[in-house]
Amino acid sequence: MTPAIRARLAALGNDLSPEMLGGSLELLKGMNRGLSPDTQVQRDIAYGPDPRHRLDLFRESAAEGAPVFVFVHGGGFLMGDKHTEGSPFYSNMGDFAARHGMIGVTLTYRLAPEHRFPSGPDDMAMAVDWLRANVAEHGGDPAKIVLSGQSAGAVHVAGYLAHRADRAEGIAGACLMSGIYDTHTCAPNASAEAYYGTDRRQWGAASCMPGLLKTPVPVQFSVAEFDPDDFQQQAAQLVEQWYGARGRYPEIHYLAGHNHLSPALSVGSDQTEVERMLAAFVARVTG
Amino acid sequence: MTPAIRARLAALGNDLSPEMLGGSLELLKGMNRGLSPDTQVQRDIAYGPDPRHRLDLFRESAAEGAPVFVFVHGGGFLMGDKHTEGSPFYSNMGDFAARHGMIGVTLTYRLAPEHRFPSGPDDMAMAVDWLRANVAEHGGDPAKIVLSGQSAGAVHVAGYLAHRADRAEGIAGACLMSGIYDTHTCAPNASAEAYYGTDRRQWGAASCMPGLLKTPVPVQFSVAEFDPDDFQQQAAQLVEQWYGARGRYPEIHYLAGHNHLSPALSVGSDQTEVERMLAAFVARVTG
Repeated sequence: MTPAIRARLAALGNDLSPEMLGGSLELLKGMNRGLSPDTQVQRDIAYGPDPRHRLDLFRESAAEGAPVFVFVHGGGFLMGDKHTEGSPFYSNMGDFAARHGMIGVTLTYRLAPEHRFPSGPDDMAMAVDWLRANVAEHGGDPAKIVLSGQSAGAVHVAGYLAHRADRAEGIAGACLMSGIYDTHTCAPNASAEAYYGTDRRQWGAASCMPGLLKTPVPVQFSVAEFDPDDFQQQAAQLVEQWYGARGRYPEIHYLAGHNHLSPALSVGSDQTEVERMLAAFVARVTG
Repeated sequence: MTPAIRARLAALGNDLSPEMLGGSLELLKGMNRGLSPDTQVQRDIAYGPDPRHRLDLFRESAAEGAPVFVFVHGGGFLMGDKHTEGSPFYSNMGDFAARHGMIGVTLTYRLAPEHRFPSGPDDMAMAVDWLRANVAEHGGDPAKIVLSGQSAGAVHVAGYLAHRADRAEGIAGACLMSGIYDTHTCAPNASAEAYYGTDRRQWGAASCMPGLLKTPVPVQFSVAEFDPDDFQQQAAQLVEQWYGARGRYPEIHYLAGHNHLSPALSVGSDQTEVERMLAAFVARVTG
């Protein structure tokens, strides 16, 4: 991230305000190169019965037995999409995968408040089951699935590893960007109440932390310099508890100059640090 | 770090064994490109009265009012040097600075057991005083000094920020790679006893942690995937205490595929992640 772009992101503040969200989208949209001409896209494949159970597939024609990189968008459990007409997001994540010789997958999932925990882990499990059954005919290797997610998307992927551990067996790796992992310590807010319910005494059972600390799946975490307080607290807590549980410092990347949204939005621009971080991890866990 | 090089470093183990140290030096030496033909070197300038008070200066001819990047080598307080005949290390760190338009400085300092704490902070202060008085005539800006150090070198730079805080005022930034910051919790070993003395009750006053947690100097930390346990513990503790003291996650980079030595040794090779990490930080704090 160049100092000039960092300064523009810093000026938007850390909070999840409309100005920060809109300003980040606009700034990074202007930096995005768009889809590679070599990337083939197949949109809106159903992986389950709900209208939100849809995924887009991205590949180059030569892909064969390729690693599968899945991106799960954020949006506070309440909103967000894999693709919006006229926007490069988040097809940029599928395109990134295709450009690196992988099969890219972007997907949507059911939203709160209509659908509550554990709808996220269940949707992830359903999508992975679909990929295991079908991705080979699209050029992917079902034994090399890497799940990535940002914000609520990271929580859903973490929830899958933690709460559907038996079904997550054999997942090659997970990239969790700016997530909330411990429902005991997270700040209570409208998003969390919509997804976990208004009775906070019920939240504990939904925490991803205990399951994350013992998952055999390799995990890459990241936290952004301008992430809101709650996400920074969660990252710091994760480092402490991971060291305590495993006796090792976790793989957690500090994304200097980035805010809560910019890591995924920067993919497909000239700011390549997040692309490199993700690609190196996938190469390592699927190599 | 490519998966192939990572595998070779992983095979050397995490412990500071002769095999790990020698194997890392040999592997990374073979990857080093050597000094750029544009880099001018002036060696063994005295910054103090001791024979170890020596620094090497690196620059390109056009440098004028440039940031000054200082590298302080490791060696367990007991050994190490800024330059060894026939080796690219650590002239590679000075050359890195010169190639990025900075003035590079590599330096030596007094060693334990002859010289004990606070000899490190005192030597850093002496070197910085020399640079403040003299670096302008070598093309550097004395208001843009960034100190970096690895292992014991990181401890000495941290000790300067923590124990000579008045003299460190105005330092633009510090890059601390794989250091030990808290003498209360560090593992007792021969190196630490040589530098801090054999009476562990005296070590507390030498801890860098309280001073680091309140330094106004911007600090970039890093920890390596294959760092020995003690360094990983210190990094995890730092994250926890920094968040507790400052309410922010610290800038701490996880260097995937690296071991205790390889970050500094990789500078000047095709594995550019450490170069990019350092250069981005210097640009940010001196821009």
